[in-house]
Amino acid sequence: MWHDTYLQTVLRPDYDYARAHLLPHLFDALSAHAWMLDQQGVTGAARALELLRELRREPFPAYDPSIEDVFFTLDLRLGQADAQAAGALRTALSRNDLDMTIYRLSARSRLMRAVVRLITLRLTLLDLAGRERETLIVAYTHHQPAQPTTLAHYLCGLENVLARDVERLFSALTRLNLCPMGAVALGGTSFPIDRDLTAELLAFDRPIENTYDAVSTSDWQVEIAGTITTAATTLSRAVHDLLFWASRGLLTLADGLVQGSSVMPQKRNPVALEHARTKLSKAIGASGAVVLSAHNVPFGDINDPGPDMQPPLHTMWQEFGEAVDLLTVTLLSPGINRRKWREEAEGGEAAITELADALAQHDQGGFREAHAAVKALLLRLHQAGRKLSEVTGDDLAAVGVNLPEAVWRSALDPANFVARRTTYGGPAPETISQHLTFARQRLEADGQQHETATARFAAARAALADVHLDSVPTAPSSAD
Amino acid sequence: MWHDTYLQTVLRPDYDYARAHLLPHLFDALSAHAWMLDQQGVTGAARALELLRELRREPFPAYDPSIEDVFFTLDLRLGQADAQAAGALRTALSRNDLDMTIYRLSARSRLMRAVVRLITLRLTLLDLAGRERETLIVAYTHHQPAQPTTLAHYLCGLENVLARDVERLFSALTRLNLCPMGAVALGGTSFPIDRDLTAELLAFDRPIENTYDAVSTSDWQVEIAGTITTAATTLSRAVHDLLFWASRGLLTLADGLVQGSSVMPQKRNPVALEHARTKLSKAIGASGAVVLSAHNVPFGDINDPGPDMQPPLHTMWQEFGEAVDLLTVTLLSPGINRRKWREEAEGGEAAITELADALAQHDQGGFREAHAAVKALLLRLHQAGRKLSEVTGDDLAAVGVNLPEAVWRSALDPANFVARRTTYGGPAPETISQHLTFARQRLEADGQQHETATARFAAARAALADVHLDSVPTAPSSAD
Amino acid sequence: MWHDTYLQTVLRPDYDYARAHLLPHLFDALSAHAWMLDQQGVTGAARALELLRELRREPFPAYDPSIEDVFFTLDLRLGQADAQAAGALRTALSRNDLDMTIYRLSARSRLMRAVVRLITLRLTLLDLAGRERETLIVAYTHHQPAQPTTLAHYLCGLENVLARDVERLFSALTRLNLCPMGAVALGGTSFPIDRDLTAELLAFDRPIENTYDAVSTSDWQVEIAGTITTAATTLSRAVHDLLFWASRGLLTLADGLVQGSSVMPQKRNPVALEHARTKLSKAIGASGAVVLSAHNVPFGDINDPGPDMQPPLHTMWQEFGEAVDLLTVTLLSPGINRRKWREEAEGGEAAITELADALAQHDQGGFREAHAAVKALLLRLHQAGRKLSEVTGDDLAAVGVNLPEAVWRSALDPANFVARRTTYGGPAPETISQHLTFARQRLEADGQQHETATARFAAARAALADVHLDSVPTAPSSAD
Amino acid sequence: MWHDTYLQTVLRPDYDYARAHLLPHLFDALSAHAWMLDQQGVTGAARALELLRELRREPFPAYDPSIEDVFFTLDLRLGQADAQAAGALRTALSRNDLDMTIYRLSARSRLMRAVVRLITLRLTLLDLAGRERETLIVAYTHHQPAQPTTLAHYLCGLENVLARDVERLFSALTRLNLCPMGAVALGGTSFPIDRDLTAELLAFDRPIENTYDAVSTSDWQVEIAGTITTAATTLSRAVHDLLFWASRGLLTLADGLVQGSSVMPQKRNPVALEHARTKLSKAIGASGAVVLSAHNVPFGDINDPGPDMQPPLHTMWQEFGEAVDLLTVTLLSPGINRRKWREEAEGGEAAITELADALAQHDQGGFREAHAAVKALLLRLHQAGRKLSEVTGDDLAAVGVNLPEAVWRSALDPANFVARRTTYGGPAPETISQHLTFARQRLEADGQQHETATARFAAARAALADVHLDSVPTAPSSAD
Repeated sequence: MWHDTYLQTVLRPDYDYARAHLLPHLFDALSAHAWMLDQQGVTGAARALELLRELRREPFPAYDPSIEDVFFTLDLRLGQADAQAAGALRTALSRNDLDMTIYRLSARSRLMRAVVRLITLRLTLLDLAGRERETLIVAYTHHQPAQPTTLAHYLCGLENVLARDVERLFSALTRLNLCPMGAVALGGTSFPIDRDLTAELLAFDRPIENTYDAVSTSDWQVEIAGTITTAATTLSRAVHDLLFWASRGLLTLADGLVQGSSVMPQKRNPVALEHARTKLSKAIGASGAVVLSAHNVPFGDINDPGPDMQPPLHTMWQEFGEAVDLLTVTLLSPGINRRKWREEAEGGEAAITELADALAQHDQGGFREAHAAVKALLLRLHQAGRKLSEVTGDDLAAVGVNLPEAVWRSALDPANFVARRTTYGGPAPETISQHLTFARQRLEADGQQHETATARFAAARAALADVHLDSVPTAPSSAD
Repeated sequence: MWHDTYLQTVLRPDYDYARAHLLPHLFDALSAHAWMLDQQGVTGAARALELLRELRREPFPAYDPSIEDVFFTLDLRLGQADAQAAGALRTALSRNDLDMTIYRLSARSRLMRAVVRLITLRLTLLDLAGRERETLIVAYTHHQPAQPTTLAHYLCGLENVLARDVERLFSALTRLNLCPMGAVALGGTSFPIDRDLTAELLAFDRPIENTYDAVSTSDWQVEIAGTITTAATTLSRAVHDLLFWASRGLLTLADGLVQGSSVMPQKRNPVALEHARTKLSKAIGASGAVVLSAHNVPFGDINDPGPDMQPPLHTMWQEFGEAVDLLTVTLLSPGINRRKWREEAEGGEAAITELADALAQHDQGGFREAHAAVKALLLRLHQAGRKLSEVTGDDLAAVGVNLPEAVWRSALDPANFVARRTTYGGPAPETISQHLTFARQRLEADGQQHETATARFAAARAALADVHLDSVPTAPSSAD
Repeated sequence: MWHDTYLQTVLRPDYDYARAHLLPHLFDALSAHAWMLDQQGVTGAARALELLRELRREPFPAYDPSIEDVFFTLDLRLGQADAQAAGALRTALSRNDLDMTIYRLSARSRLMRAVVRLITLRLTLLDLAGRERETLIVAYTHHQPAQPTTLAHYLCGLENVLARDVERLFSALTRLNLCPMGAVALGGTSFPIDRDLTAELLAFDRPIENTYDAVSTSDWQVEIAGTITTAATTLSRAVHDLLFWASRGLLTLADGLVQGSSVMPQKRNPVALEHARTKLSKAIGASGAVVLSAHNVPFGDINDPGPDMQPPLHTMWQEFGEAVDLLTVTLLSPGINRRKWREEAEGGEAAITELADALAQHDQGGFREAHAAVKALLLRLHQAGRKLSEVTGDDLAAVGVNLPEAVWRSALDPANFVARRTTYGGPAPETISQHLTFARQRLEADGQQHETATARFAAARAALADVHLDSVPTAPSSAD
Repeated sequence: MWHDTYLQTVLRPDYDYARAHLLPHLFDALSAHAWMLDQQGVTGAARALELLRELRREPFPAYDPSIEDVFFTLDLRLGQADAQAAGALRTALSRNDLDMTIYRLSARSRLMRAVVRLITLRLTLLDLAGRERETLIVAYTHHQPAQPTTLAHYLCGLENVLARDVERLFSALTRLNLCPMGAVALGGTSFPIDRDLTAELLAFDRPIENTYDAVSTSDWQVEIAGTITTAATTLSRAVHDLLFWASRGLLTLADGLVQGSSVMPQKRNPVALEHARTKLSKAIGASGAVVLSAHNVPFGDINDPGPDMQPPLHTMWQEFGEAVDLLTVTLLSPGINRRKWREEAEGGEAAITELADALAQHDQGGFREAHAAVKALLLRLHQAGRKLSEVTGDDLAAVGVNLPEAVWRSALDPANFVARRTTYGGPAPETISQHLTFARQRLEADGQQHETATARFAAARAALADVHLDSVPTAPSSAD
């Protein structure tokens, strides 16, 4: 019946994808529909719900080229069991609204798991920051040593961005978690159905307000692609820095995360980070495929944002999730070479800003002139081939800087540099401690929000499948 | 001093861009900083604020290769006017935090204008929908005539998606509207500053909680790129359909929006829509440049997400905004060929679903069997080379369908098809009327939210510049 | 030994990918290396070659977490069989140069198969064009009916672009088909090896001229991504038109390539084309992932353009190839509604350009004035609500056009319109016939070039594996 | 006449773009057309050619909203001068074929300039390599020190890739340099024209073989986008490394290419490289806009790949060209810290591979065992907290390595390491010298090819404009 090329390139892979990833959502959506129909008095709907509860416990058939897709496979089995029930279930139902519902349920589940992963990474960052509050590092700007700060300050900065990523995901959830059921082909139906009830049974926030929108839109998928891209770019930047540190021996990875060389006996390559980087690139690339699939196509029910978009979305979630996991395990037990980092902070010129600050405060002459004087001091040292750590009072005097020795010595000490930076959001250890308290509370709240949502979704499935809530997996499963 | 290549490819274009687009934000940020410093007791800061208020009224100098950028141009002018004030202003200030503040203020302004444009388009869609509640059209799925619906139903579906786009922009605003000021180079300062005050003066929601994040992050820019990409893909889909309609004479554009041909005398090309399409493609492309600029670079203060990212963001906002405007003017006064659309609805087979629905309801036999019977009916007609509009009771009987003539004639009337679809979100005219009431209220609320935010931002600028609020432009200006 | 996360997200999938897609290339590369070493007098190398020939016939072990990758799996087996041979094989060999060689061999094979697919599609286009040389269609510009032409003219235009795509692939092959072997880790070796010989044994054009380039570069992969993107955009445009035709009943698809609806009994959706469209979008998206994986990473041996880039390349080749196949089968046996197409050509105004042409030629007054006169004629008809097919001599006279009736009647006949367009490259049937002769010869030459290259690659493998050439598959295999 | 929104967002910017960038090509294309028409005996065509030669010397009018575009502006001026000539010129001419011709001429000119820029960069790389043949560096793989090599080896590797980029551009030229003229609207004309002559006059390689292809295709633009993307990714990788070196003080930039900090007095930021990086990102992003503009649009004459695609192509060429220029000036006079680089090479473990090589050669035991023995040696040293430079004969003996002291000492000397790597393509100074000879010859040949093509294009323009060849600019002009 089907052209073999069509079967091999479309029907079979679609079936296999749906069977591997979408069945629980298919059963959920149909069960909610049957439940609603029964409430509306459709004969046979109750029996359909019963049959669905039975069939979801049985193994789902492997691909059979004579049947179009998973929907018709299930339809056939239902029909064999009870033709009336099967017929009833088809009332006010189309694959159009059904499929879009399934894709949203699947995305909801994936999104929840991405949130868990990001929360775990954030927790890891905060824990590490808590341990490295006093670890001096040199922060680079424009690829040059800039100022001393602490590893905790950097890590908290990163966690602060990731907190916004979680916020974005929760925000996207509010537009994803809307119910297309009842839109049927595109214009609803002449049957009296109850879209609110179906939406509620599936733990959606509400039915989509327009049935044409319900079966046509791709916005929520493109939004997710943008949201993951946003998080992925931030993480790609963090990976850059971690690898920069690893390349200079400031950071080492645990044994299980490095690989050696078949040629170079000394190599301990920080490959977990390298693979995390490409996984992020690939997640962004897959997001691009999602965007392209929604570009310049009709606004209506088509395959592009439907079954065809699911594989790139799958790749996007998977590569992103794995990158986050690799970062998390890397940061759970990293080797932090505090000594080497301190040497860099003390050996260079990164603390010199504070000398200008101190001068400006002491002379009340404004930062502009202080900056110029300190620049002259550095020029003097460089011309003599001397290091900043060798600076003397005479040097300062020679460029017109008159500061008590205690003041300038203190200014040039990177630990002092950091300790003085108690600005809100700054690196001083006690400022970081305050921030950590705030950040842990925020993380806690995010975890709570995730748990509440997950519990709600699990309860809906338990009711639809008529199982005890405990038997509904809330944890990530590989099946989706 | 500067290498000529560097000057021509970086410094001069950066200056020109900043002078054309960023000056009001530069003055705002510096004024807020001066105000805060004055409150913290810094001598000269009050005078700096005064000078800034004067200088912002004067023409800003054209590019001078001997000065690095707009910041140092202004610094020089301040220094010439009052060295102490200029020095004071530099306290606890870096171009790092200043620039990031300016870019956020600029993006805030652009985002507000994008919201206005989308709201205007939504209003246009709802107005047109109000006029076309009874205009029958054939909705296509998978590029084939599917079911009758109304033009209003389609337009409301589109507006429903765009409402989510505005929601997304407002959501992005909450992460964009955070204040980097006080982060200085990256680690704050040893001066006692008040970041809350600076944030408040600039009408930011709060200071960013970590100073490293403040000068480093690109997340809010990538998020905006994703948000615009999301809206652009949806609009690209709508453009597809509008052009599909225009290509078949169902829709015509006003005279000022079509172009002819230098060769083909009959041509009235719907070019406004075509250009809107490419503008959307270019907006998405520019978003891609934003993503790339934040990819695999250090997480720290660098130029990539700073000055270098502003031109693609500018292109993105501009192309997107112009595309929205072209769509709006197209839909303000389109020629709707209602007659031709009705002919299509009545001449084809799009209404046939309702025959199956009617049969299922009448026979209580379930939709599955009804679908099969109606399919047989069509096969019979096709084999005889007859149209559905020529169907007779004998045809129905021949495929085992026994429905009263009034019932099947009514089922096959596309106007009835639509009138019966009173499902929540469906196309029945009275259902659409209810939806329009809801949609107009939602639009009103969005407009209100936009106005409130805009007024708040304008009041902040008025206070900083010490001008009457009335003289602060709230409407879009070409300068940004 | 390995962290479980690293094992599950990196090592195992890499192994599985290599085992499924890369083994023949691994054996080829190692065999060529062994052969070369033997020629250079390395003891044990001949035995290694022998063992490789044996092992390639045996099933390759499934993943074993205690072994790093396929290379070390094979190394272990070789070592178990003959430690000296295994040791010899490691001489002047690194996974760096080996892997890059394998990826190039794999890409070469994929590229050859993409060429076959495009050649098949081109042949299909030319065959169809041959049958539709006189099928009048209306060509659209700017989404409006523009001029009559023939279906053959359109199809030949498309084939003409695809011929350039094949040219591009052959051009890319010259930069892909270069040999990294002998670069070892990056700097070659102190052993005297013969890189020319290894290259020749593997049917590469030459060794890469710099060993650092050999293990580091990603250019050939990004070039392929661009080449496939180029072809994919062209095909996406063709799909647009095919679906536009299908939506208006001008084109129908064979039974095995359409799907129906679970709700709408009349639907025969041209889904093969729709899926082809998204497959092209996904091929472009996967190309984007390739670009991103080579963006802002070190220029040196890293994983990003190595193992990590292979899955998106795989997706790119696969989605692209399947899209081409779907287009090919669609165009092998399409339903061409010649009558309907002719009606459109005759019923509209598309032929009117020729009236202006005829007028310009007759009056010698220049095309500019003729164009204006004909525009006036159309205005006159439109105002009277009349069609161009109803035009009379009086109408022409009224706008100052004085042409013999035979001339203007002939000018307005779309078949004449086409027949007169004998410009080189134009649609007149005999012009198309000449073009088809040329195009078939070009296709023949491309086929010949493909065959020659394929035979050369097959001969190399036959020699390395020591098998009869006939037993080396030249046809596409699913294993790569 | 035009809607103001359409005028402001489309017509005016299109006019301004064309006036700034496309006029010479417009005059060329029309002049060639007039010349050909005259040869075909069209009255007035000779006069049109004459007028075009005059008008091209005059300033072109600024935008006038009453005229559609530059074509009609010129048409009007021609008509005012001589109506018959103007009418004659319109014979067998459409903006469709004319515009596509202009865009190809523009792209040809841009491509030639990109080639010059890449050739200049390659020359700079080879010159620098010539000076740094003996500059030891540590090559990193997977972000870890891997092996000693020379700076020249790295630079030659990069130049080797860029040579392929130039090859790609020349290859793209063969598909770009085809003539659409004579395709008129899409189907040619019933006038007897000579497309070969027009093509020849414009120095195109040949007319496009199908007139529908001629006005419709976007393939050559997408190909260029891919080609530039390929080069840009390679350069982005080089920038990564240059910045990595700059961040560690191994490389410094000339004074005119660094910027300081308003806060940190010590900063000398390598900003030329940083801006080069984002320019490359933006070039790739603009390429993406080109791809999107050709995605899922009709295959026919439309605006998307026409005027609308020119601005992103302009951005692409400009950002790419400026990035190349910034890299070139950076590498013309870099500070190379040879001492520091040597210290890194001598202080680490990068040379250790050679010890394994030496051991394998000495013992004839195979590289596998040698690798294991050397790994044991490193473990011994690490456990004792000692450096490789402190290794003794006892250490070697303890892990079973028995090599004469002279042998192992020599093996561990990075200069020896490099000197021994005389493999074809390797880093040994004399090997590099041979490579440099080859690379300079290749560069010379590329320069010759560029010059020949440029001279041919210039001669064509000189003839069309009837000026002395010397007055035709062959060098890049800012006007295109």
